[in-house]
Amino acid sequence: MKNFTSVHDVPSIDELVIKALSYKTTPFIDKSLGAGKRIGLLFLNPSMRTRLSTQIAAQNLGMEPIVFNVGQEGWALEFEDEAIMSGSTVEHVKDAAPIMGNYFDILAIRTFPSLKNREDDYSELYIKQFIKYAGIPVVSLESATLHPLQSLTDIITITESLKKKPLPAGKKPKIVLTWAPHVKPLPQCVANSFSQWVNAWGQADFVITHPEDYELDEQFTKGATITHNQDEALKDADFVYVKNWSTFKDYGKIYTNDPEWMLTNKKLAVTNNAKVMHCLPVRRNVELSDEILDGLNSIVTQEASNRVWAAQAVLSEILESLK
Amino acid sequence: MKNFTSVHDVPSIDELVIKALSYKTTPFIDKSLGAGKRIGLLFLNPSMRTRLSTQIAAQNLGMEPIVFNVGQEGWALEFEDEAIMSGSTVEHVKDAAPIMGNYFDILAIRTFPSLKNREDDYSELYIKQFIKYAGIPVVSLESATLHPLQSLTDIITITESLKKKPLPAGKKPKIVLTWAPHVKPLPQCVANSFSQWVNAWGQADFVITHPEDYELDEQFTKGATITHNQDEALKDADFVYVKNWSTFKDYGKIYTNDPEWMLTNKKLAVTNNAKVMHCLPVRRNVELSDEILDGLNSIVTQEASNRVWAAQAVLSEILESLK
Amino acid sequence: MKNFTSVHDVPSIDELVIKALSYKTTPFIDKSLGAGKRIGLLFLNPSMRTRLSTQIAAQNLGMEPIVFNVGQEGWALEFEDEAIMSGSTVEHVKDAAPIMGNYFDILAIRTFPSLKNREDDYSELYIKQFIKYAGIPVVSLESATLHPLQSLTDIITITESLKKKPLPAGKKPKIVLTWAPHVKPLPQCVANSFSQWVNAWGQADFVITHPEDYELDEQFTKGATITHNQDEALKDADFVYVKNWSTFKDYGKIYTNDPEWMLTNKKLAVTNNAKVMHCLPVRRNVELSDEILDGLNSIVTQEASNRVWAAQAVLSEILESLK
Repeated sequence: MKNFTSVHDVPSIDELVIKALSYKTTPFIDKSLGAGKRIGLLFLNPSMRTRLSTQIAAQNLGMEPIVFNVGQEGWALEFEDEAIMSGSTVEHVKDAAPIMGNYFDILAIRTFPSLKNREDDYSELYIKQFIKYAGIPVVSLESATLHPLQSLTDIITITESLKKKPLPAGKKPKIVLTWAPHVKPLPQCVANSFSQWVNAWGQADFVITHPEDYELDEQFTKGATITHNQDEALKDADFVYVKNWSTFKDYGKIYTNDPEWMLTNKKLAVTNNAKVMHCLPVRRNVELSDEILDGLNSIVTQEASNRVWAAQAVLSEILESLK
Repeated sequence: MKNFTSVHDVPSIDELVIKALSYKTTPFIDKSLGAGKRIGLLFLNPSMRTRLSTQIAAQNLGMEPIVFNVGQEGWALEFEDEAIMSGSTVEHVKDAAPIMGNYFDILAIRTFPSLKNREDDYSELYIKQFIKYAGIPVVSLESATLHPLQSLTDIITITESLKKKPLPAGKKPKIVLTWAPHVKPLPQCVANSFSQWVNAWGQADFVITHPEDYELDEQFTKGATITHNQDEALKDADFVYVKNWSTFKDYGKIYTNDPEWMLTNKKLAVTNNAKVMHCLPVRRNVELSDEILDGLNSIVTQEASNRVWAAQAVLSEILESLK
Repeated sequence: MKNFTSVHDVPSIDELVIKALSYKTTPFIDKSLGAGKRIGLLFLNPSMRTRLSTQIAAQNLGMEPIVFNVGQEGWALEFEDEAIMSGSTVEHVKDAAPIMGNYFDILAIRTFPSLKNREDDYSELYIKQFIKYAGIPVVSLESATLHPLQSLTDIITITESLKKKPLPAGKKPKIVLTWAPHVKPLPQCVANSFSQWVNAWGQADFVITHPEDYELDEQFTKGATITHNQDEALKDADFVYVKNWSTFKDYGKIYTNDPEWMLTNKKLAVTNNAKVMHCLPVRRNVELSDEILDGLNSIVTQEASNRVWAAQAVLSEILESLK
C-alpha cells in the first residue's frame, strides 16, 4: 500500500482486518519496523481519537510521530493552482508539501470540507494536492468526503463482534446505516466512507435509511438498499450504525431535525439485538439516547479503541512498502 | 497509590518526599519502570510548569507522554449527566473517558473552576467524572479546588530547605500562608491544597493570614491558626507562602486589592529570615515585589524546579501499582 | 559554541557548513550525543519549518525535544524590568527562564518583532532576557532582528550548489539579495541575517537591491554593494535571494508594493542562470512568480530541507560544549 485515502488503496480488506486484530493482541511486535522513520500528522481541523490513535499506532511501530496543528501553530495554506496570494493564505501546498516530504517518511493529513461548494469538496483538492507534491505516502486522517481509518475500524469491530457471537452458518449480517438528528450541518464523510467500505467488503446485507432528500452520493452507496422508513430498515438488523450528515444534493443543508429519527431502545426492539455503532463524538440525547449509549448494545467504546489497531495496520503496510 | 487528586490518596507524605528527593539525585534510575506505558496529559486549561514538569517526569520514567489541549486541539466536553447536548459541548466525558482509558495507562487532567457556582466547583465534577469513566489511574494536574502536585512540591521544597539549614532540635518550622493582591479573581486551589497538605503533614506551626471575608473552606484549613493581621502572622515565620485567591463564601469575588498586603523586605524583617514561596506564575509588584523575588529569601525557582521530582514520585508510585 | 543567536556566535562558518552537510549524509551518526538531554522549543510566534526541522534535528541527535507554544498553551510573558504587572502579561521572563533552565539542557526560542518601535525591537530584549536568566545555552529560532538558523541553511545551500556545479577557478559567486513586494509589513530579520552571514562568510560578491527608502540597518549590510536598480543588480548573478521586508528607518512601514519588483523569468534572463532562493513561506505571484518557483532555477525546497542539517550542526556544537 502506498497511500491510504479510500478503500481503493486496499488490496484486501480482510487481510488488513486480520493484521489489525493481530496488533491488538501484540501491540509491540513490529516495534523495529518503523525505527528511524518519522510520520508527520498534519491537522487542518480538530481531532481527538484520530490524532491520539494514529500517534499511538506510530509509536507502537517504533516511528517518531510529530503532530502539527497547521492553522494554529503555523499558517493558512493555499491549495488553488495559479493563485495570486494577496489574501489570507500564507503558503502554497506546492511549497509546503515537498518540504514535508523531505522532513518525513509518511505524511498523514486531516482536512474538513467547507460544506459550501459541493464540486470543490468532492474534488478532494486538498489531499490530492498533498499527494501530488509531497512525494511520500499520504494517509487520510479524514478528508472532505471520506474517513477511511474510521471505516476500517468499523469493519474491524464488526468482524470482532461476529467472531465473538457468530451468526447462523451462511447468514450474512444485516448492517443498517441510519441518519440521526444533529444541531449543525455535518460532512457526509463518515457515511460515505462507511458505505464505500461495507459495499467493498461485500459480506453484509447493507441498508441505508434517512429522511427524504438526504440521499448520499451514489458512487459510495450503490449496492445498498435505501429507504426512508427507519423502522422497516431496522428490522432484524445485526448492526446499526448511527450518524448524522447534511444534505448532498442541495449541498450542506439541514432539512429536518425530526427527533423521531433518534435511536431509542424501543426502536431497537425490532432488531436482532443489534450492536449500535457511532464514530464519535456523539451529541447525547440529540443523535443517540443515553439509554442506548449506556446500554449493553452499544459498542462505541470498543469501536473507538480499535482506531489504534486500524491505524497501526495501515502504517505497517505502508512501512513495508518503503523497505 | 491508584489516583492522585488530593492528599487523601497519599499513604505517607514523608515517603513520597524522600522518593522525590531521591529522583532529584538520580533522575533516570527508574527509566525501565514505565517502558511500554503511556500517559495522556489532558489540558482543559493553560499550563506551563505543570505540563512541562509532568511530561519530563514521565519521560524520566521511560513512559511516552502525549499532551492534548482539549479545547484547542479537540472540542468542548460535557460533564453533566443526562445532558441534552444541543448546545456548545460536542462530546460527553462518559464517551471520551473510557476511550482515553483504552488509549493510555495513566490519565492526567487539568481543569479550572468556573468561579461562578461554588457548589458546582466544589463538587469536583470534572475530575470525578474522569475517574468514574476512564477506568485507569487519574492524576490531577490542578482541579477546581485543589492542586496536589503543587502542594507536594511545596512540602518537598520545605523539607529540602530544612535539611540544608536545620532549625534548633525540637523546634517546628512556622509556616505562614499569606493572601496577596491580584488583578483578577483567582481559584482557591493552591491555597486550599497547601493548607490541606501542611495540616496532613503535621510537622509545622501553621498560620494563615488574609483580609476579612477571604476565609477559605474549613475542610482544608482546620487546624491552622487564622488571622487578619498579616504583621502578627509573619512574626518569626520560617516560610512565607504568598498566594492570591478570590472569596470563598460570597464566591469568586475580589473584595479588596489593598497593596498593603503585598510582601516586601520591610514586612519580611519580622520573620526568622523566612524563605518566600509562590507557586508561580506571579504578577511582579502586584502579588510580590521585585526586591523579594530577586532577593536571597526567595526559593520560588527551586520550588518550581522540584515540580519534576514531585510528578516523578507520584507517577512512579502509580506505575508500581499497575505491575 | 554556547548560544546561537547570530553569526557572532560561530567560530567558523565553513566548519559548521561541513558538519551540516555531513549530517545530511549520515543523520543518525551522533544519536548518542544528546542521550538524556532535553531541548525546550518555545514559540512566542507561529512556525512551521523552524519548528519541525529543529525538532527533527534534536531527535536525530538523540535528544528529547519538547515544543511549547507559549501564548496558546501557556500565557503572555513580561520582559520589561521593574514592570508593575497589573496588565495582560501573567509571568515575567525573570521567573519563567530560570525554571526552563532547570527543566531543559538547551532552550530554543522564537520571538517576532512588534514592528512598532525600532529601538525596542533592535534591542533584542526578549532573547537577551532569556539568555540572561535561563542559565543554559539559548538558540534563536528567529528573533526580532535576526534569523541565524535560516542564514546558516542559506550558506549551506549555496555551498552545496557550488560544489555540484563549480564556478571557474578563482571566481567568486555573485549573490544578490532582492526586495520583493508583499501585502503585509514584514520583519527585516531574514534580510538582516542573510546580509550579516554573507558578509561574515566573505566568499561572495554581494549585492543588495531594493526600492528607495528600504535601506536595511548598516550594521548588517556594511560591505555589500547597495543599489535601487534591480536589473543592474541581477546582471550575472549566480544566486538571487528574494525577500520582502518593511522599512527600517521610518520603521515597519510599506512604502511601495510595485509589482515590477517581483522576480520573473524575464528578469532572470540577465543572470548567470542564477539559482533562486527564498526562506519560505512565500506568497506566490506576489513575492515570487509561479514560473520561477515551479522552474528549474528555484532551489527553495532544497534550502528548506537543509534546515534540519543546519539545526543539527548547531545543536551538536552546543551539546559538545556541555560535555
